[in-house]
Amino acid sequence: MTGEAVVITDVGPRDGLQNQLKLLSIDERVQLIKAVAAAGVAQVEVGSFVSPKAVPAMAATDQVFAELQGQADYSALSIALIPNMKGYELAKAAGAKTVTMVLYASDGMAQKNASMSMAEAEAVTLDILACAKRDGIAVIATISVAFECPFDGPVDPALVERIAAKFMAAGADQVVLADTIGAAQPQQVRELTARLVQTHGAAQLGCHFHDTRAMGLANVFAAVESGIRRFDSSIAGLGGCPFAPGASGNVATEDITMMLSQMGFATGIDMTKLIAASDLAQQLTGTAPGGRSKPWIQRYLVKTQK
Amino acid sequence: MTGEAVVITDVGPRDGLQNQLKLLSIDERVQLIKAVAAAGVAQVEVGSFVSPKAVPAMAATDQVFAELQGQADYSALSIALIPNMKGYELAKAAGAKTVTMVLYASDGMAQKNASMSMAEAEAVTLDILACAKRDGIAVIATISVAFECPFDGPVDPALVERIAAKFMAAGADQVVLADTIGAAQPQQVRELTARLVQTHGAAQLGCHFHDTRAMGLANVFAAVESGIRRFDSSIAGLGGCPFAPGASGNVATEDITMMLSQMGFATGIDMTKLIAASDLAQQLTGTAPGGRSKPWIQRYLVKTQK
Repeated sequence: MTGEAVVITDVGPRDGLQNQLKLLSIDERVQLIKAVAAAGVAQVEVGSFVSPKAVPAMAATDQVFAELQGQADYSALSIALIPNMKGYELAKAAGAKTVTMVLYASDGMAQKNASMSMAEAEAVTLDILACAKRDGIAVIATISVAFECPFDGPVDPALVERIAAKFMAAGADQVVLADTIGAAQPQQVRELTARLVQTHGAAQLGCHFHDTRAMGLANVFAAVESGIRRFDSSIAGLGGCPFAPGASGNVATEDITMMLSQMGFATGIDMTKLIAASDLAQQLTGTAPGGRSKPWIQRYLVKTQK
Repeated sequence: MTGEAVVITDVGPRDGLQNQLKLLSIDERVQLIKAVAAAGVAQVEVGSFVSPKAVPAMAATDQVFAELQGQADYSALSIALIPNMKGYELAKAAGAKTVTMVLYASDGMAQKNASMSMAEAEAVTLDILACAKRDGIAVIATISVAFECPFDGPVDPALVERIAAKFMAAGADQVVLADTIGAAQPQQVRELTARLVQTHGAAQLGCHFHDTRAMGLANVFAAVESGIRRFDSSIAGLGGCPFAPGASGNVATEDITMMLSQMGFATGIDMTKLIAASDLAQQLTGTAPGGRSKPWIQRYLVKTQK
C-alpha cells in the first residue's frame, strides 16, 4: 500500500470539544482548527449547528465559520455537523461547503439523540440531501451506532447496509459508519465494511471509531483491509458523545496517522506539526489525553528520515 | 470463530514485574500468579532464572516455584523464562515443566541483552532444547525483536522465518514472535504470521505484542486473521523490557480477553475474576495502568449474560 492515499477527517473540534467540560472561546476553537489544518489533515469537522442549550460547547459555530472564511484555504476543508433542517439552514447561511448529516442504526439512539424514530431521521435527512444537492453543498451521511447501540444493543448489519444503500442511491457524497460508543470488534468491522465496499466501492465510504475498549486501531486496520480509505479521528484523542452513555474518546489522530504511515499510506500529514496541534489541544482543554503513540512519533520520524 | 479456543499466556508476573521499580515479595508474586490462574488464564510466566543483580525483581524465582509446587494445579500452567544454560539448570532444579528460551532477530539486541551474537544465542538455545527434550521439559522458543530492533532497526521477515523454521525442526513445542518494543504494524504482522502459519501450521505458533504505539490489539487481530491462536499478554498491562529502550507495557490481558471474547473465541477466562486479578496487580505494584477496556468489562458481562 506504499504511497496509497488515505483521507483523515479530524472531528476533534466538534466530536471532541462537545464532550469537554471546559468551553473554548471562538478564538481558541479557530486556533485549534487552524493548527490541525496546518498539519495537513484533509478535512476538519469544525463545529455543529445544534441547540446551544443542548450543546453549549458548539454555540456560535457560525462565528467559527466566519473566522475561517476570511481565509479561502480553510473553507474548503471545513465540515459542519447538522442534526436537522434548521441546522442545515444555519450551516448554509454560515457558508459551509460540506455538511455531515446524522442517521441512526437504532430507534433507541434516534429517540434519545434526536427525539425521532430511525425512519423519521431518514426522511428528514433525505429532505436535507435534496436541498444540499440544489445548493451545491456536499453531504456526508454518518450512520451512528452502526455496530452497537447503548440502548438497543447489537445492531443487525443488514440494517446498516440498507441505510447505506438508501443514501448512496440518494446521492450522498460519503457514507460513514460510526461506532459511536466504541463497542465494535474488528471481525465485525471487517465483515460489514467488506460487504459495503463490494456493493458500493470504497471511494465514498468512511469509518469513525472510538477507542473506548482499546480496539480503535484494530477496527481501523480491519476497515483498511476491506479497502476503506477514509477515517474520522480526533486530535489528542479528544472526544466522546454526551448523549451516548459509555462513549469515550475518538481514535486519536496521532495514533491513526502513526499506524497508517507505518503501513506505508500517504496521509498528507506532517507529524511534527500534528504534535504541535495535539499539544495545543491538550493545552486548551486541559483534559485531552493525547494520542498514545505521541511520545514515539518523534523517535519514529528520526528513524524514518535517516 | 464462535467457540474456537484461543490460549492466553499471562507474562505479567515476569515481563511485567521485571520492569516495575517496586520489588514484590515472594508472597505477593505468588498471590498475583494465583489470582491470574484463578481467572482461568491457560498459562502464566511466573518468573525468570536470571541474575538477581541484573533483574532484582526476579530474584528467588525458585522460591516462587516452590510455593506453587505445593499445589499440583499451578505447576502445570507455570512457565519459567531462561536466558541461558545456567538458567535452564536452575529452572529444572526448581521443578519447571515448561521453559521459555530467548532468541534474537538482531545482533544488536542479542549483544545488549545477552552479550552474544544472534548465532551464539541460537547455538546455546539448541543445546538447552536438547537437554529439555531429554528431561521431559516443554520448551517455548521466543524470538525477540521479531519485527524491529531498537538498536538495528527494522528486521527482515526472512530472518525470522529462518529462525522459526530452525527451532520448529529442532523440536520446540512453541515458537513465539515477540514485538519486544511494540513497534510492529498490523500489515507486517498479518504478512509474516500468514507465511509462518502456511509453513508450520498454527498449533505451535504464538505472538507477543506490546501496546507502546496503541497498535497492540490491531496486531493481535492481524495475527488472529492469519490463524494464530496463542497470545502473550500481561495482567493490568504491566510490562516492558528494561534492556529495550522504547518498550512499554504488554497488551493487557483484560483488553485481549475482551476483544477475543467479543469476537466469539473461547478463552476459558472468567472476566469477573480477571478484573479481581487486575485490581490485585494494580494494588501490589501501585503503577500498573490496568487494561483500557477494564471499565467496560462489567457492562459487557451484564449485557451478554442477559
